[in-house]
Amino acid sequence: MKVLITGIDGYSGWPLALHLLSRGHEVVGIDNFVTRKRVQEVGSWSATPIPTFARRQAAVKEVLGKDLGFHRGDLARYDFVRDVLSTERPDAIVHLAEQRSAPYSMIDVHHAVATQVDNLTGTLHLVYAMRECCPDAHLVKMGTMGEYGTPNVDIAEGFFEVEFRGRKDRMPFPRQAGSWYHWSKVFDSGDVMFATKIWNLKSTDVMQGVIYGVRTPEITDDRLLTRFDFDETWGTALNRFIAQAVLGLPITPYGKGEQKRGFIALEDSMQSLRIAVENPPRAGDYRVFNQFDAYYSVNELAELAHRIAHDFGLTPTIEHPADPRVEAEQHYYHPLHDNLLSLGYRRSRALEDVMREIFHDLIRFRRRLEAKKHVVLPTVQWRSADSRPALAARLPPPPGPPPIGSNEPTPEGHTA
Amino acid sequence: MKVLITGIDGYSGWPLALHLLSRGHEVVGIDNFVTRKRVQEVGSWSATPIPTFARRQAAVKEVLGKDLGFHRGDLARYDFVRDVLSTERPDAIVHLAEQRSAPYSMIDVHHAVATQVDNLTGTLHLVYAMRECCPDAHLVKMGTMGEYGTPNVDIAEGFFEVEFRGRKDRMPFPRQAGSWYHWSKVFDSGDVMFATKIWNLKSTDVMQGVIYGVRTPEITDDRLLTRFDFDETWGTALNRFIAQAVLGLPITPYGKGEQKRGFIALEDSMQSLRIAVENPPRAGDYRVFNQFDAYYSVNELAELAHRIAHDFGLTPTIEHPADPRVEAEQHYYHPLHDNLLSLGYRRSRALEDVMREIFHDLIRFRRRLEAKKHVVLPTVQWRSADSRPALAARLPPPPGPPPIGSNEPTPEGHTA
Repeated sequence: MKVLITGIDGYSGWPLALHLLSRGHEVVGIDNFVTRKRVQEVGSWSATPIPTFARRQAAVKEVLGKDLGFHRGDLARYDFVRDVLSTERPDAIVHLAEQRSAPYSMIDVHHAVATQVDNLTGTLHLVYAMRECCPDAHLVKMGTMGEYGTPNVDIAEGFFEVEFRGRKDRMPFPRQAGSWYHWSKVFDSGDVMFATKIWNLKSTDVMQGVIYGVRTPEITDDRLLTRFDFDETWGTALNRFIAQAVLGLPITPYGKGEQKRGFIALEDSMQSLRIAVENPPRAGDYRVFNQFDAYYSVNELAELAHRIAHDFGLTPTIEHPADPRVEAEQHYYHPLHDNLLSLGYRRSRALEDVMREIFHDLIRFRRRLEAKKHVVLPTVQWRSADSRPALAARLPPPPGPPPIGSNEPTPEGHTA
Repeated sequence: MKVLITGIDGYSGWPLALHLLSRGHEVVGIDNFVTRKRVQEVGSWSATPIPTFARRQAAVKEVLGKDLGFHRGDLARYDFVRDVLSTERPDAIVHLAEQRSAPYSMIDVHHAVATQVDNLTGTLHLVYAMRECCPDAHLVKMGTMGEYGTPNVDIAEGFFEVEFRGRKDRMPFPRQAGSWYHWSKVFDSGDVMFATKIWNLKSTDVMQGVIYGVRTPEITDDRLLTRFDFDETWGTALNRFIAQAVLGLPITPYGKGEQKRGFIALEDSMQSLRIAVENPPRAGDYRVFNQFDAYYSVNELAELAHRIAHDFGLTPTIEHPADPRVEAEQHYYHPLHDNLLSLGYRRSRALEDVMREIFHDLIRFRRRLEAKKHVVLPTVQWRSADSRPALAARLPPPPGPPPIGSNEPTPEGHTA
């Protein structure tokens, strides 16, 4: 199949391209490199060194012997989106080109608006361009388990049977997101569900759990590494805990640490997306996958990181700073996830193994962590309307010409 | 109380200002006059002649003896919103400044994006500015009953008790909107609910039914008239039916005409909003009002318009064009609406009386209807990705300088 990946330069987009290519699919990507710039904006970078996209393409050719198509551009420009779709006519579009950080969206009003406007505009442009150029293509959109929040009932896969005042209906499961970013994903879900209905499209909405891991089987060469973020804004709790352990800092689960979330290994997320792509729904079907393997509390992750750290000769402590978010620190959590299993998905990686693999890589790239040690602890506060001063206070003055506003992709240090 | 009305130049905003002033409240407004421009864009105008805003203010002073504050500007500019809120420090903000037309949002990709981006940005800017400048103020946000769609169960007021797989929770009632516009209102609801939670604001989310009527008791002079839209894009079905009868055209319920919706008279909508303003919730409370009196099918409205027309010597027929929307033409409909009643709201106007009043006024302004007779029938099709050519085909060439893009408010003909 021919698959278009939007956000192909990102954490998931890149290994998905490698995985689909290695399975014999044709892959074309879109990116505007804004994540590289936004990570710079908060004073950080990827723990893994990421080559320029041109070098990534060359490495794919050399290592995998495959051609990887690419269109540099922004989903905010409808003409660009329509041109790419009418030129490429993909069988499937995996839409990963969104601002994906909850803390980034909570920095201030402008980051809130940019997150919601950019994400929503990109998705609307994609569904309109599909309607115009390739109405038979299948849209696989990346959502998040965070759309559902933490209700006191089991979480259905997108839809559930409602009985209310003596009557029944199948309805969308209510969404109760916890950041402007998570709400932007809720909005995308609404728009894609509606576009599918009025235009008879095919769509899969992936309620993605937190992804962990730095490697997939296709990453056989350092030039093929995907990015790995560990700062407060772009890194997940699991990433930050391992970075803290490697840096000799305390591991810091926020608040009580009993917040539970669904998780999936990077390699298994790629497996899931490939299964979704290879098994499209019928025209007019909007289907939802809850895409995770297991749920863990933040404390479980912290304790596991703490235990594995000792095997690597590291001796971090565990501390509990106040939770910068507004979220339940103790709650029921039981999401269902049968749809992918019914299509043949099977978990291939265990949490502990993958965490050891991350420790191994972060120790290799320790000098890159040390250079950005000051951006691991939280400054963005959900209860504040403006975390910009706190964030700015710890940023070093920009060296040489300012990195923000440049349209060039940034190499982020090609060697470790 | 001091009340800030965003969208004060609009169909609801204007009579709300008159109503609140006459009840002794202080009123300040914001508008950017974009609705006047967008109605021109589709080749139409208000059936009632609307003076410039400066003349409206002067008429308020002369007729009601009241001062009406005003800030011209756009909610898309955060600095403007923050400046107004920090200068005015209102007790309540009634947020009506949104693109409010479902067909307008369905014209093409750019109208879809503009609708969702403008509505969402304005609301985010307002809640952030409230957090910064007047965190104790009460936000009354205009939503729509259309957020809920037409589920096969009763529609709760915002929240309902869910029992799912043996456990219970109180959750947001699922939203299933039917246009990009209606989805934009769903998105606003999510953002306001979330802002209320993280910042301990006070908010009322009004799930407004379709408003009908052209007069309120405060409109005692033609200079105080509110706008009345009757074209396919900006006019409701009820407005279009009466305009069609007055113009000697067939009355045209779309499709089977059994679509049911909740309705409320303009005067009673003003009563509801005033009650919401005068009874704010506690800090941290996000409450939802389903604001309508009764529900009618489109056929019921068509038949009533047909019957009343005869009393005015008019003899329209009833025809059923294909439904340009994607919606259930036959469905269950039973929304609950107890919250306003419990605060003392009582219906004051009967549908038939108000419809007679509209016939009376539209016959007075018949020449203004006749000038725009060609924009009553539908051209915007939900199933099309681009209704722009169909819409443009019937527009006359612009007389003199093009009306779009001007930043000046347009008088729309000061006299009938």
